[in-house]
Amino acid sequence: MPNSFGKLFRITTWGESHGPAVGVVIDGCPPRLPLTLAEIQSDLDRRRPGQSDITTPRKEDDKVEILSGVFEGMTTGVPISLAVRSGDQRPGAYDEMREKFRPSHADYTYQAKYGHRDHRGGGRSSARETIGRVAAGAIARKILHLAGNIEVRAYVTQIHDLIAPPVSHFPSLAEVEATAVRCPDLNSAALMIERIKQARSTGDSVGGIIECRIRNVPVGLGEPVFDRLEADLAKAMLSLPATKGFEIGSGFAGALLKGSQHNDAFLREASRIRTATNNSGGVQGGISNGEEIVFRVAFKPTATILQPQKTVDVSGTETELLARGRHDPCVVPRAVVIVEAMAALVLVDHWMRHHAQNQAFKF
Amino acid sequence: MPNSFGKLFRITTWGESHGPAVGVVIDGCPPRLPLTLAEIQSDLDRRRPGQSDITTPRKEDDKVEILSGVFEGMTTGVPISLAVRSGDQRPGAYDEMREKFRPSHADYTYQAKYGHRDHRGGGRSSARETIGRVAAGAIARKILHLAGNIEVRAYVTQIHDLIAPPVSHFPSLAEVEATAVRCPDLNSAALMIERIKQARSTGDSVGGIIECRIRNVPVGLGEPVFDRLEADLAKAMLSLPATKGFEIGSGFAGALLKGSQHNDAFLREASRIRTATNNSGGVQGGISNGEEIVFRVAFKPTATILQPQKTVDVSGTETELLARGRHDPCVVPRAVVIVEAMAALVLVDHWMRHHAQNQAFKF
Amino acid sequence: MPNSFGKLFRITTWGESHGPAVGVVIDGCPPRLPLTLAEIQSDLDRRRPGQSDITTPRKEDDKVEILSGVFEGMTTGVPISLAVRSGDQRPGAYDEMREKFRPSHADYTYQAKYGHRDHRGGGRSSARETIGRVAAGAIARKILHLAGNIEVRAYVTQIHDLIAPPVSHFPSLAEVEATAVRCPDLNSAALMIERIKQARSTGDSVGGIIECRIRNVPVGLGEPVFDRLEADLAKAMLSLPATKGFEIGSGFAGALLKGSQHNDAFLREASRIRTATNNSGGVQGGISNGEEIVFRVAFKPTATILQPQKTVDVSGTETELLARGRHDPCVVPRAVVIVEAMAALVLVDHWMRHHAQNQAFKF
Amino acid sequence: MPNSFGKLFRITTWGESHGPAVGVVIDGCPPRLPLTLAEIQSDLDRRRPGQSDITTPRKEDDKVEILSGVFEGMTTGVPISLAVRSGDQRPGAYDEMREKFRPSHADYTYQAKYGHRDHRGGGRSSARETIGRVAAGAIARKILHLAGNIEVRAYVTQIHDLIAPPVSHFPSLAEVEATAVRCPDLNSAALMIERIKQARSTGDSVGGIIECRIRNVPVGLGEPVFDRLEADLAKAMLSLPATKGFEIGSGFAGALLKGSQHNDAFLREASRIRTATNNSGGVQGGISNGEEIVFRVAFKPTATILQPQKTVDVSGTETELLARGRHDPCVVPRAVVIVEAMAALVLVDHWMRHHAQNQAFKF
Repeated sequence: MPNSFGKLFRITTWGESHGPAVGVVIDGCPPRLPLTLAEIQSDLDRRRPGQSDITTPRKEDDKVEILSGVFEGMTTGVPISLAVRSGDQRPGAYDEMREKFRPSHADYTYQAKYGHRDHRGGGRSSARETIGRVAAGAIARKILHLAGNIEVRAYVTQIHDLIAPPVSHFPSLAEVEATAVRCPDLNSAALMIERIKQARSTGDSVGGIIECRIRNVPVGLGEPVFDRLEADLAKAMLSLPATKGFEIGSGFAGALLKGSQHNDAFLREASRIRTATNNSGGVQGGISNGEEIVFRVAFKPTATILQPQKTVDVSGTETELLARGRHDPCVVPRAVVIVEAMAALVLVDHWMRHHAQNQAFKF
Repeated sequence: MPNSFGKLFRITTWGESHGPAVGVVIDGCPPRLPLTLAEIQSDLDRRRPGQSDITTPRKEDDKVEILSGVFEGMTTGVPISLAVRSGDQRPGAYDEMREKFRPSHADYTYQAKYGHRDHRGGGRSSARETIGRVAAGAIARKILHLAGNIEVRAYVTQIHDLIAPPVSHFPSLAEVEATAVRCPDLNSAALMIERIKQARSTGDSVGGIIECRIRNVPVGLGEPVFDRLEADLAKAMLSLPATKGFEIGSGFAGALLKGSQHNDAFLREASRIRTATNNSGGVQGGISNGEEIVFRVAFKPTATILQPQKTVDVSGTETELLARGRHDPCVVPRAVVIVEAMAALVLVDHWMRHHAQNQAFKF
Repeated sequence: MPNSFGKLFRITTWGESHGPAVGVVIDGCPPRLPLTLAEIQSDLDRRRPGQSDITTPRKEDDKVEILSGVFEGMTTGVPISLAVRSGDQRPGAYDEMREKFRPSHADYTYQAKYGHRDHRGGGRSSARETIGRVAAGAIARKILHLAGNIEVRAYVTQIHDLIAPPVSHFPSLAEVEATAVRCPDLNSAALMIERIKQARSTGDSVGGIIECRIRNVPVGLGEPVFDRLEADLAKAMLSLPATKGFEIGSGFAGALLKGSQHNDAFLREASRIRTATNNSGGVQGGISNGEEIVFRVAFKPTATILQPQKTVDVSGTETELLARGRHDPCVVPRAVVIVEAMAALVLVDHWMRHHAQNQAFKF
Repeated sequence: MPNSFGKLFRITTWGESHGPAVGVVIDGCPPRLPLTLAEIQSDLDRRRPGQSDITTPRKEDDKVEILSGVFEGMTTGVPISLAVRSGDQRPGAYDEMREKFRPSHADYTYQAKYGHRDHRGGGRSSARETIGRVAAGAIARKILHLAGNIEVRAYVTQIHDLIAPPVSHFPSLAEVEATAVRCPDLNSAALMIERIKQARSTGDSVGGIIECRIRNVPVGLGEPVFDRLEADLAKAMLSLPATKGFEIGSGFAGALLKGSQHNDAFLREASRIRTATNNSGGVQGGISNGEEIVFRVAFKPTATILQPQKTVDVSGTETELLARGRHDPCVVPRAVVIVEAMAALVLVDHWMRHHAQNQAFKF
């Protein structure tokens, strides 16, 4: 179960960084969805290493293969199995990781929990696991698009202490993809790219914040009490490597407002009920209210840095570690598509759940 | 499913604010746990309305009854059913809610989703639902205490824009309970209480932030990939009414640090592996590392305010609402025990899951 | 989890035979279903003890109370909590059960598994647990009726070695309820009643077989691979106390046929595709094909007999047990409504699951 | 979900008969289990086509590959992904299946449910799906062996109307594998093989019954109320293609006994509590009692026969079908290892569940 996500549109990811392959099985995908390999590959290309000069220079093609569930260009309703074979590996680069626990990585906790681990490149704890999420997310986004033109768009709003001005509109994909850092504000983007390069040049790393918006969401998705839409989004985001926080709508800053300021007054707009403000972030009582869903995710600086660090080895002896290898000085730009994938998975799942309970029967 | 939480220690809550009763069924509780009614009631008393002069003056005794699962003072391993009968109700106070959607409440989204709702006092979306969580949480905390002296302690760190100084130690329950606002810093507490009274006097409301710490957590709880400990904690917290954000360890502020500052160096302390700092918040790779788990939850200001508000009615016509009734001008102090309950539920569930996979078989 | 059944229409039962109450929480019930207390009570009355002269003379009214989820005569989509308070108890009658394990009951296995049990009347292993199933089943049957006039009808076809002639039509409820033994063949029914009385007069017990048919099932319910309709029906039936076998369509006798005899030829009937025979029992590849679903369930003779039996006590010492109390010499007639309940629960759940995957999206 | 089985030791199978590959992901496998490819392949070889002169002559090597979860000869606790590439395919042989529904196959119901299907060789409904089950089952059996020398042994007891004498002992694997039909009684086996050949020579098919025994099962596995051990075994068996019935212990014949004959008297044997007879089939109240678990599964005759059959085509027009291709005249001998696999999966899962609730905490 720990490697599955979703109740009705359910994905199960598998694979280690330096194993033969990584992949995902999607169970519950609706049948008759037109689907091409290119649609999945396109999102994977936004995730893959080596895509720009601010990511790791590792060359990984990450070419996906469809092993089941799609026949003659359409899904059949049975499990979709997707796999990506591993490529450019330099296992020698990771030998030290067998013995020494990298600070703020999962080496120590995996060793303590399981007593045996594939140490190469972080093994299962590698962000390479997210390939399966992105591949499944591409399918979820296609479904949302066809179902109601629902769009999920994430972008970078902060790198280190560089904070972009608020984005006043729903940015286009082109705006987001215009720069390697995926911040739609071009001035901020330039500074952010510079900051990331700076961090790399000193063998250091930086973190940041991603904002995600979803529009055209119908009213009614999300389920009280425990499976609120924001609760499932929070879980989805905190399940991503390197994330430290999640907030929706007004978020932590909402605590600074009074109720009379924070409440979103209802109003009538044409035939729709809308709200004058959106401190709720598109969700009320755990259920979408038709406004844009807006949330933010905090990412810590990459744990791998090319500076000497104090640590202990598997025998518990204190030692020093000097990481080598090719790493991202900042994971945030590549994480944009992963955030979109997880958000899309949550929405498709809740769409199906909503319909099962509320639309399957007519009384 | 939406009304259940947990995989192995699984709770299902039921009941509406003004229905005959609210309750919870706990499935999977270990057998042979000594358990008294008083232990459950004690936590419910920390949650109940009317407990101090900064909460709602509604009088609700919230006396819990054990209907199954406990025999001769010990759990038997079968479902524990707990119920609290409803008391002091003034349904007349809620008549307007049948017709007019309260801003930033769940009235509209429930109506849109289900087409039929119990409007009285918010019905199922009322925070009265959390009675079941607190009752189950009391049992979870007893288990954690007996299992390894694991302690869960939440407290208020911010009310409106009043931010208490960082709490440098693990506060005792007495320190937290010393004031009605449950902030262990007495100076801050006094100001916070004043601020809440001020808000009430103007018919307004305020929000705040709760911090929660858990100590004596063994290494190894939490499961990659999706069911990371922090992911399940995030879901648990965002499933609470009025929450807008969750962060663990360094949280959103972690984005401001460089990797060389953020990484938690490992060191040896007696026979234990520890970390020099705790930006990770006690979790690495989704798995507890033995350090204190530290997270924070943001609460918005109470949506019910005693000021006129613009809204629409069930026919979609714009109108004005002036709430009456007895409400909390700030839910944060009463939410402390609910945060503790949810955190304890997550930990017991993960303890059981960890043992199932990693301890059940000896190879 | 072990006390829950169903994925989307999910019930959780709780309660012990001699505890304060037994009950059920139904999560996932569609909203806007008209529902009265009488509709639930009516099925409970078919299950309750003391209903005829071939059941136990225990007087249990089994009056159900609705604690949540129904408002102004309609379901609201939130959990429905139902409870039945315990009545006519003679705990003294069960004192011996604390010490001595009753043969072919669950006393020994519960004690070994949990180390602590409520021995009174079998505690959690009592068939009194099925009250919750029947109450939930009544709601499921109402849904099926409104959704598509789907009818579930069970009846007795065998008591001990008395085998009724095959039932060539779909019997009416009146035909089934015409006799206390619930066998629609009146001649057989008379003999069966006599046989049960005979068994009782010697302090012995008998078992039997129940057949269940479901008509007007739409094509398409059930899911490959593991959640085939017959697999979930089999689990539902084997989860009932005293059941030893399940077969669908041709069942065990199907092994005696050749493929050329067993295959159900497809034919066209008006606008429908039908089969000439129904050895499949209405399910092919795990999915309903629109024909009647027909299955049978084997029940062992009641374990409680009023004759001396060899057994061991809780200390492991061999001893003799002579049960007293008021018991059913045959559980089969009262189990008819329980079989119907479980079948209805499976169908509603699969209807919702089918809709979620196959109807929620239009491509 | 429908393609997953198990709660804690959870498998998800994927793949269609004529797709690029079939496979399974196992989530929840305990870490540190020594595991070789050969151990998995060995069970797959017992399942594969072409293994003897009474199975289909299709040549399928079914060579399994381990894609994740095993490192340096031991499991790591993360998902184990196993895949078998497809081999000897003659898709032309299946062209007719695109248009005509094969009687008593899943062609029609899949088409009706999903609206789009991979018709080649039955697609997802092909028994080729069971490759994943057998591969996972091999791992489950290894675990059971190491955990407590628990052995699962299935064998054929009936082919068509040929019924072997009762097997009075727990047969060895060698006894079962001694003949191609996997009936440990050699005389019966010879007749059965002859009967299968006869069926094939007339283009017909036969079914049969498999019995399965499990020994050295500890007391306490299985969970009331819904997840009784026999309920999960029943679901596991009815989830297999071509199965029509399941019975445990006395089974359907148990209905012919009186309680005084059927009850299993408890007795003391050395330090163990045992039963004098085993009509319970090793399970009481849903929980294993330490006796041998004994159950039987009925298989219908293979639906594919090489005789003309009446059917309808996808447009609903009546037509005739004459199947070609290479098929098993009887699936029962090859199903023996599949029954063992499913039984082992159920036991490992319940072992883990039992441990989680009853052993994880010491009070």
